[in-house]
Amino acid sequence: MELVASNKVVGGWHKRYRHASTTTQCDMTFAVFLPEITNTGQKVPVLYWLSGLTCTDENFMQKAGAFKVANELGIAIVAPDTSPRGDNVPDDPKGDYDFGLGAGFYLNATMPPFDKHYQMYDYVVTELPQLIKSHFPVTQQQAISGHSMGGHGALTIGLRNIEQYSSISAFSPIVHPQQCPWGIKAFTGYLGIDTKTWQKYDATALMSTNEFEQPIPILIDQGDADGFLDEQLQPWHLQKAAEHINYPLTFNMREGYDHSYFFISSFIDEHLRFHASHF
Amino acid sequence: MELVASNKVVGGWHKRYRHASTTTQCDMTFAVFLPEITNTGQKVPVLYWLSGLTCTDENFMQKAGAFKVANELGIAIVAPDTSPRGDNVPDDPKGDYDFGLGAGFYLNATMPPFDKHYQMYDYVVTELPQLIKSHFPVTQQQAISGHSMGGHGALTIGLRNIEQYSSISAFSPIVHPQQCPWGIKAFTGYLGIDTKTWQKYDATALMSTNEFEQPIPILIDQGDADGFLDEQLQPWHLQKAAEHINYPLTFNMREGYDHSYFFISSFIDEHLRFHASHF
Repeated sequence: MELVASNKVVGGWHKRYRHASTTTQCDMTFAVFLPEITNTGQKVPVLYWLSGLTCTDENFMQKAGAFKVANELGIAIVAPDTSPRGDNVPDDPKGDYDFGLGAGFYLNATMPPFDKHYQMYDYVVTELPQLIKSHFPVTQQQAISGHSMGGHGALTIGLRNIEQYSSISAFSPIVHPQQCPWGIKAFTGYLGIDTKTWQKYDATALMSTNEFEQPIPILIDQGDADGFLDEQLQPWHLQKAAEHINYPLTFNMREGYDHSYFFISSFIDEHLRFHASHF
Repeated sequence: MELVASNKVVGGWHKRYRHASTTTQCDMTFAVFLPEITNTGQKVPVLYWLSGLTCTDENFMQKAGAFKVANELGIAIVAPDTSPRGDNVPDDPKGDYDFGLGAGFYLNATMPPFDKHYQMYDYVVTELPQLIKSHFPVTQQQAISGHSMGGHGALTIGLRNIEQYSSISAFSPIVHPQQCPWGIKAFTGYLGIDTKTWQKYDATALMSTNEFEQPIPILIDQGDADGFLDEQLQPWHLQKAAEHINYPLTFNMREGYDHSYFFISSFIDEHLRFHASHF
């Protein structure tokens, strides 16, 4: 694991690392925020943050304004990249922003040529947490959150691994990818046209078909001035499925807020306190 | 004045505007943060933020994490660009980052071909505040702050216009540009080789030669792991000059912090509270 950058922040540290991933078969970069109390070796719980389309590990760390409250609560934050990267990693044939590099959709691709490297589900669920636990002062406690495509990632990964996380949250998530343009394009390209294989990567489908004996709480914030709300995000699908099985989902529609990090930075403290209350 | 972007944040608004500047004779873009209480028309004081080399109006607004406390204190923040821009605006002949576009040094250039557009001192001191006062709900109260080259701008503009600002602050400022490589290059290019013309743009020279009957307080934060500290920033020059005349300057050397926005975001709340206490 190679240290790429290191910056002191609010008494703790922001660090970026590069490592050869066995899961995605390429070099992966991730960032970690370590609160001040870890300077003396004290272990803290970890919030995994999954970013949206076009992002890297850097967006959240530079723009979310999460460190003061994360430091106060004693929470580490880990932000992986949004896809595999590198000269050998295939991209969208047209170079579009919503598929390929920067758009891994946190799934395990099965369609060539994407199946070799685009294994982001396994990377986030298995390889990265093992790496974090073996190199940083963290407890076994984990929560997961994300934005847009990363909100989709947080919801699907969280709902499929309820024993691994204590809570899930999302900003402006894609909740029903098999019925929105971004999701249909990505799932067709990564998984093929058999929509049966899509179900396990669709939060609304998981909420509708899975049984949750010990559900973990979900918090979602969505801006009502978000330009992607009606066509891509459609959170009401997940709300309806959650209501049907009485799943503990808190949904906040925020008046006037858009899809940007200005929105995330406005409510990230509440998400951090939500996760802290469930560790 | 054309609205370029508008994002709700912490209950208030981040907005970007473009306007034809009579001072720099080109289109200029600036950003403003308006706290929530201005939504009902209440007037608030303004903090001007001047960014460093390579920056635009966007860096502070996206990375500083200043809005929560600025909102709580009821302070608007205005961030101008760091130079004139546009196809007709001359750049560094070699395209270096430390001169020309993104590197206006907040002075009025006198050397062709830069003298026509590079009039950032007058733009920040006169044109921009007039524009802000005529279009936004602000009081007459102003403070000024900045980072690196922008710290130099805040110090020199503040010290030369003490009646206009109630306090000055800076992160990692260039305090003695006539004796550091960045400053010597910029001043030679914009002002020529007669160093007498450099004095009014050098904070240490201003502190050493001017008389301040009613000095306004200065707050400076500097990281001791800042890679530019010894060669470019050299804050001890200003500290020494201030001590000599008993000028009210508070200087904090911060252990382990570097030159990045991770440093700024760690201490921006203290700067906001400092300015609020002097409005």
